[in-house]
Amino acid sequence: MTTEQTRADAGRYVEDLADIEDDFDRWYVEVVKKSGLIDDSPIRGCKIIKPYGYALWEACMNYLDPQFKATGVENASFPMFIPRANLEREADHVEGFAPEVAWVTHGGGRAFPESEWWAVRPTSEAVILPAFGKWIQSYRDLPLLINQWNSVFRWTDRPRAFLRTAEFLWHEGHTAHATAEEAVERTLQMLEIFRVFLEEQCAIPTIPGVKSEAEKFAGAQRTYTVEAMMGGKKWALQAGTSHYFGDHFGRAFDVQFLDRDGSRKFIESTSWAVSQRVIGAVIMVHGDDAGLILPPRMAPIQAIGVPIYKNDEEKAQVEEALDAALGAVAFAGVRAKADWSDQRSGWKRNEWELRGVPIRLEIGPRDIAAGVATIVRRDTREKEQVATDDLATRVPLLLEQIQTDLLRRARALLDENTHPIDDYDALKEHVAANRGFALVRWCLDPACEAAIKEETKATSRCLPLGGQDDPGPCVRCGREATGPRWVFARAY
Amino acid sequence: MTTEQTRADAGRYVEDLADIEDDFDRWYVEVVKKSGLIDDSPIRGCKIIKPYGYALWEACMNYLDPQFKATGVENASFPMFIPRANLEREADHVEGFAPEVAWVTHGGGRAFPESEWWAVRPTSEAVILPAFGKWIQSYRDLPLLINQWNSVFRWTDRPRAFLRTAEFLWHEGHTAHATAEEAVERTLQMLEIFRVFLEEQCAIPTIPGVKSEAEKFAGAQRTYTVEAMMGGKKWALQAGTSHYFGDHFGRAFDVQFLDRDGSRKFIESTSWAVSQRVIGAVIMVHGDDAGLILPPRMAPIQAIGVPIYKNDEEKAQVEEALDAALGAVAFAGVRAKADWSDQRSGWKRNEWELRGVPIRLEIGPRDIAAGVATIVRRDTREKEQVATDDLATRVPLLLEQIQTDLLRRARALLDENTHPIDDYDALKEHVAANRGFALVRWCLDPACEAAIKEETKATSRCLPLGGQDDPGPCVRCGREATGPRWVFARAY
Repeated sequence: MTTEQTRADAGRYVEDLADIEDDFDRWYVEVVKKSGLIDDSPIRGCKIIKPYGYALWEACMNYLDPQFKATGVENASFPMFIPRANLEREADHVEGFAPEVAWVTHGGGRAFPESEWWAVRPTSEAVILPAFGKWIQSYRDLPLLINQWNSVFRWTDRPRAFLRTAEFLWHEGHTAHATAEEAVERTLQMLEIFRVFLEEQCAIPTIPGVKSEAEKFAGAQRTYTVEAMMGGKKWALQAGTSHYFGDHFGRAFDVQFLDRDGSRKFIESTSWAVSQRVIGAVIMVHGDDAGLILPPRMAPIQAIGVPIYKNDEEKAQVEEALDAALGAVAFAGVRAKADWSDQRSGWKRNEWELRGVPIRLEIGPRDIAAGVATIVRRDTREKEQVATDDLATRVPLLLEQIQTDLLRRARALLDENTHPIDDYDALKEHVAANRGFALVRWCLDPACEAAIKEETKATSRCLPLGGQDDPGPCVRCGREATGPRWVFARAY
Repeated sequence: MTTEQTRADAGRYVEDLADIEDDFDRWYVEVVKKSGLIDDSPIRGCKIIKPYGYALWEACMNYLDPQFKATGVENASFPMFIPRANLEREADHVEGFAPEVAWVTHGGGRAFPESEWWAVRPTSEAVILPAFGKWIQSYRDLPLLINQWNSVFRWTDRPRAFLRTAEFLWHEGHTAHATAEEAVERTLQMLEIFRVFLEEQCAIPTIPGVKSEAEKFAGAQRTYTVEAMMGGKKWALQAGTSHYFGDHFGRAFDVQFLDRDGSRKFIESTSWAVSQRVIGAVIMVHGDDAGLILPPRMAPIQAIGVPIYKNDEEKAQVEEALDAALGAVAFAGVRAKADWSDQRSGWKRNEWELRGVPIRLEIGPRDIAAGVATIVRRDTREKEQVATDDLATRVPLLLEQIQTDLLRRARALLDENTHPIDDYDALKEHVAANRGFALVRWCLDPACEAAIKEETKATSRCLPLGGQDDPGPCVRCGREATGPRWVFARAY
C-alpha cells in the first residue's frame, strides 16, 4: 500500500462510519474497530483488545483497585482452571454455567478421564470457596476479603465487542463473613463503589437495584445490579453486579467457622464484579456520528496536539510552539500528545475525533502570531482561542467541564427516557419503538416476567433500591402488584 | 480448633521451619507456605497465590509497568487460547512447547475436531504475530511495541512454588521492528530494565548474558538472560529473558512491511519476560532461618507495629502511642501497620519475622515513659531506641539502609561464590559441593555442554555480556575455547 493509498483509505474513515441514528448496531461494530479499540481473533467468540482499548480497561482498574483496597480487600491469584467435581458441587451454579464452559481434556501429553476434566473458569466461586475452607478456622479469620483481576471464559455464539465475548476481562471479588448482616452490607458497599465509579469515572449514571429471581446469578440468594441506559436504541446494560449468597456456597463447599459462642457455622459469602462491558457502555452512552467521545478521566490521551503548517519553515516554528504548549499542559497533569505523523491536518482531525480524544489543541502560524492556541472540545465541537500562557489552567478546567457535561447529558438521556407505564399495549409499543426504560408494576409472578419477555422482548432489569411503594395492577396480568415499580427494558 | 490450639500451633511456626543450611529445599517449601505467600490448589501443578504473595507480584508490576511504558510499550490483551494450527506454524516453537500444552477440546457443548483444538497459551507469539501481520502495513507502523500482563500454562510434573508451576503469572513483551539493529537494541534495552529492576527493587544482582544454542528459547535466534545466584545451595536462577528472533517469526507468520525503499520485508521481532519466579528468587536470596527477609521496596508491609502490654490500662496507653508513631511513619510514606491481634507479643515477633517485614516497631509502657520506640531490623536483628519525634525520619532512612545492605550482601554472595575453574574434576567437585557459579572455558560444542550437564548436573547459564576474552582449553574436552568464559552452574 502506498502512502497515497493509505491517505485515501484514511480519508474514508468517518464517511464510512454507519449513521448512529439509522443503524446503531452497525455504528458500534464499526466504531470499536476503526477507533483501534479491538480486533478479531482466531479464537471463536474472542477478541483482541488493542492498546487503545486496553488503556480504557487500565483506567477502570486504576480507579477500582485502590477503592477495593481502601475497604480492606486484598488481591490474590487462583488457577484459571476448575476441576469438574468442584464446579458440580453447587447445583444451581453448575446448571447456570455448564453449557458455557470450555473444557481442558488433554495435558502433559495425555488424556484426562472425563470425570477429571478441567473447566476453564467461567467465574471462580468453585475454586475460591474450597480455599476459604482451608483458610478460615474461626471468627478471627473473618471477614476474608479477596479480589482477583483476570479473565474468564463463557462460550457464546454471538460475540459483541466488549459487551459479550467468550473470554472477557473482569475482576471478581469474593468475601466470607460471620453474619448475614455483614455480608449484605458488603454486597451493597461494593455495589455503591460500582455506582460511583460509573458516575465519576465513566460519566454514566445508573439505577442500582435488585435482580428478579429469574435474572439473578446462578447460585445467588440475591443479585444487586447497576443498570445503565445506552445511547442509540436506549437499551439497558447491566454494568456491574454484586451477589449475596447467604450460606449457600458455604454449605455447598462446607466452609465452616468457629463462632464467638463456640458453635460451628457456615460462612456467609458474596461476590461482585465489573467487566470490560463498561467500556462498551462508555462507547454507547457517549459516542456520536464522528466516533468515540471519551470521558476525560478515562481518556488515554486527554489533549491531542495537531500542528498546522504548509512548509518546513512553518513546521519548525509550529513544532517549537506546540511542544511548549503541550509541555505546559502535561506539566499541569494532562495526558497530552502531539500528532506529528505525515498525514494532513484534516485527516488528523477526523482521526482524533473518531478516537474520542476530549480536547484537540491546534497551533498554526496565525495562532503563533496571535500568541494563542485553538482548542476544540470533542463533545460539542466548540472552539476557543486560548492565550498560550493560559493553557495550563484552561485545559484542565475544560476537561473537568467536559466530564461534568457528559454526565449531565447521560443523566438527561436516562431521565428523559424512563417512564412509568401501566398499559400493556403501551409497554409493547414503548419497547418496540426503543423509547427507553419502562417503570412497571409487576406481580412478581415469574410467568408474567417470562410472558413480558416473550411478548415485548423487554426483561426485568431491576427493582430500584429505595423506590417508593406504588401498588396497583400488574402490567401484564392485572393482579395486585405491591412494592415499588420495576424497571423493564430490552438489554444487551 | 480452639483459641488455645491456634496459639499452640502458631507457637510452633518457627521451630518447625527446616534449617536453612541443612535442608534448603525443605526450608523453601515450608517458608513459602507458612509465611502465607502461597497454597496448594486442586489443579495439578498449579498453586494459589495468596494475598501476601500476590502483593509481591504487584510490587513487581508496579515497578516494571511504568518502565515499559516509558520506552513506548503499550499494554494489550490477546486471547488465552491459540488455535492448534497457529502454534504449529513455527517448527522450533511447537517442538519446544507442544509437550507442555494443555488442550481445550470441548466447548459450547460440543467436541472440536482434533485439528481445531485450542492450546492454552504457553506463550503468545503464535497469536500475537498474526495480529501484527494485520496491523503492520509499512515502516510507518514500526516499531510496534506490545506487552501483556497475564498467566500462561506449561505442564509440569514437578511444581515448585513460584519457580516452576504449570500456570504462572508473568508479562510478555512482543515487539516488531524494521531492522535487525533496532530489534537487537530493544532486546538489550529490556534486558537492562530487568537487570536494574532485580537490583533496585529486589536487591538481587545478576549476571546479564547470552544463552547457549541448547538453552535458548524455542524459536529464538538469540536469548539474553539475567542469571541470579540463590542462597542456600548457591544454584542459578534465570530471572528474566529477552529474545531476539531475527525475521524468524516474521517469516513463519508472514508478517511483512513496505520499507522506505519501496521493498517488502519481513519484520524483525523480539519478546521478553519476567515471571513470578523473581518472587522465588527474592525468597531464596534474602531469607534466613527465621523465614522471609523482604527488600523494603517490595515489602507489602515495611514496618509492623507490635504493642507490648500486660493489662487493659497499659493497652490503652500503648494503643495511643503506637497509633501516633505508625501514623507519623505512614505520613512519611512508609507502608506501616499495627498487629492488634490477640496473640502474645512473642508470637507476633516470630510471625512478622517469618513474614519478612523489614522493620518491627515495638512500643510498651517503658518506651512511652522514655519517649521512644524500639525498632528492630529484620535482616540483622539490630535493635535501636528512637525518640518518637525522630521516627518519621529514622524509619524511612533505615528502610533504605536495609535495601542497600541486602543488595550488598547478595552481591557478596554472588561474587564470593563465582570462580574460574579450569580443571574438569575441580568443576565436578565445585558443582557437587554447591560452591556456586563456575566460570569455565567452553569450546561451544553442544556435545561438551551436554556431557557437562550429564556428568556434573551443571548447565551453561550464559556467556556474560562484556566479558574479557580468555582463550584456553575447553574445560571438558581440552580443545581450544575462544572468547570470554561461560557461567556454568546447577539451576532451578
